[in-house]
Amino acid sequence: MLTKLLSAIVPPDAEAGAIAQERLDRLTKPPGSLGRLEELARRLVEISGRCPPVIERPVIFTLAADHGVTVEGVSAYPQVVTAQMVENFLAGGAAVNVLARHVGATVVVADLGLATPLPDRPELVRRPIAAGTANMAIGPAMTRDEALRALAVGAELVEAEWARGADAIGTGEMGIGNTTAASAVVAALTGVPVEEVTGLGTGIEHAAWRRKVSVIERALAVNQPDPADAIDVLAKVGGFEIAGLTGVALAGAAHRLPVFVDGFIAGAAALCAVGLAPDARGYLIASHRSVEPGHRHVLDALGQTPYLDLGMRLGEGTGAALCIGLARAAAAILREMATFKSAGVSGRTP
Amino acid sequence: MLTKLLSAIVPPDAEAGAIAQERLDRLTKPPGSLGRLEELARRLVEISGRCPPVIERPVIFTLAADHGVTVEGVSAYPQVVTAQMVENFLAGGAAVNVLARHVGATVVVADLGLATPLPDRPELVRRPIAAGTANMAIGPAMTRDEALRALAVGAELVEAEWARGADAIGTGEMGIGNTTAASAVVAALTGVPVEEVTGLGTGIEHAAWRRKVSVIERALAVNQPDPADAIDVLAKVGGFEIAGLTGVALAGAAHRLPVFVDGFIAGAAALCAVGLAPDARGYLIASHRSVEPGHRHVLDALGQTPYLDLGMRLGEGTGAALCIGLARAAAAILREMATFKSAGVSGRTP
Repeated sequence: MLTKLLSAIVPPDAEAGAIAQERLDRLTKPPGSLGRLEELARRLVEISGRCPPVIERPVIFTLAADHGVTVEGVSAYPQVVTAQMVENFLAGGAAVNVLARHVGATVVVADLGLATPLPDRPELVRRPIAAGTANMAIGPAMTRDEALRALAVGAELVEAEWARGADAIGTGEMGIGNTTAASAVVAALTGVPVEEVTGLGTGIEHAAWRRKVSVIERALAVNQPDPADAIDVLAKVGGFEIAGLTGVALAGAAHRLPVFVDGFIAGAAALCAVGLAPDARGYLIASHRSVEPGHRHVLDALGQTPYLDLGMRLGEGTGAALCIGLARAAAAILREMATFKSAGVSGRTP
Repeated sequence: MLTKLLSAIVPPDAEAGAIAQERLDRLTKPPGSLGRLEELARRLVEISGRCPPVIERPVIFTLAADHGVTVEGVSAYPQVVTAQMVENFLAGGAAVNVLARHVGATVVVADLGLATPLPDRPELVRRPIAAGTANMAIGPAMTRDEALRALAVGAELVEAEWARGADAIGTGEMGIGNTTAASAVVAALTGVPVEEVTGLGTGIEHAAWRRKVSVIERALAVNQPDPADAIDVLAKVGGFEIAGLTGVALAGAAHRLPVFVDGFIAGAAALCAVGLAPDARGYLIASHRSVEPGHRHVLDALGQTPYLDLGMRLGEGTGAALCIGLARAAAAILREMATFKSAGVSGRTP
């Protein structure tokens, strides 16, 4: 499965991007005066190969799973909140629901491994790998096979939505303890010291932050994840939802869809995707700059500057949703604006 | 008229803001985790006194006028482009039309003083003060009475839209040569050297930039605008559309509407509004950070940090439109998100 997925990923279409740029420069505005909105419009064309690009059916994948490492006291909230928030997603009352509705996006909510069982619900995609990961501070979070299965679930979710016409995707997550896993993944992949990639998550105090740093350092020492092997990193110090989002990003790239990467945790998954398929990078769009300190290193490694910087740190796909709104605006610029010629507007003074 | 307008402006409702904050902290997310989106939601409540705030009928005022100073060769485009772009606004093909449609906003296009006459059109609000300002490099751009009349036109436009149910407004403009006027206004009001508040506008070369700086320095030396008297500044080195937007901002504040201030030129008008009525400041929302170097000084003087930073420099109200989109998202958060209690989600670990 993975081999086939990776081989389907080719670089974005630079030629289509050049056509988009040429059109952008003919629109009734000084060239470049819409700044990064123009850059985003051009990227959407490079990604999809279509000019003007179309974002009519964006889908945000909010994957949920629990983390064995929470027994170490690394989060401000109890583990049961993961499942409770999944219920909230299904009821439409969480931030990602509100922001997705605002930009006309659908939210796909999937259980990749909740510790608290939820009753069957038609809107809940149940694909649990296990009832939460094992505690990475004392051994691998999951087996290599489990990591591959979680990744495959993410890819299959995209496959299903692509078949229904999805033309843009966002990555989001919910999992109490998952900033701990994401920090470990980012430290393992980038080599940046744990202290620099570890933040306050949902809002822990300084003493808990010190504990979180030491737990991550222990997890890396115990497991020795191989930075050249993203699957090894995901298995040893990742999470089911993070592995799932790696699959989402890869499948998005394989289908030439723009992948709006949310914040720090989704960013860690994006890094894994690029580790597996360097050409996936061109399909990833860094949505917003998270308050989590490790996000800067994720963005550096992805070579991206996010489009929004609003001091957010919620996850779920909330930043991806807002950026999808901007992307629809960027697409509309290419689709709807008049050219100097069509509007009869004079060009620059010779 | 002005006295009545200024006396109607009272500070925003801090008590309502506190109620909004209390509600924001009960929503199903770690407190503060939506960052500046929460700040924006709270500001909308302080401004309107309503929780949740409502932005159902936003209106962007795109005021157009010409500038006598263009004879000095300060712009990359010929003066006729102002009128041609007004035609483009009326046809719906300009960037502000596209972005306003994207966020569900109406655009009111008004002629405050075009040099090129346009035929009557039902969608064009014709309220010209004169056929463009006089050349400020050799004397005042307009009389004090003209500045007051332009300001009154802006206020009347808001009045009319407010009567039709407008619940949020944006300020935008079009006028070849108006970054020259805006730079002069900002230099006069803030005392910042002309070189630091003067940029490339629509895209002039270095030699033209040097000329632009020297023209503005001459205009200030010849006219000696009084920084303590915003009307004097508008009259001597402003523009009809800039004075009009000052009136738009003041009338918005008087009606307790959020005023989404676009970029540098709209920002210069906002500074004038605050000069006339310091309490108007609380109603102004800095939408985006413009590439124009003088914008930083406008933002400093307004004490605001914009919500978007996309390297834009187009004007028209394009940044205001995008920020109205964010504001609608912020309002939806307060209106639609579940609370920990209503969703049955556990709070922090004690």
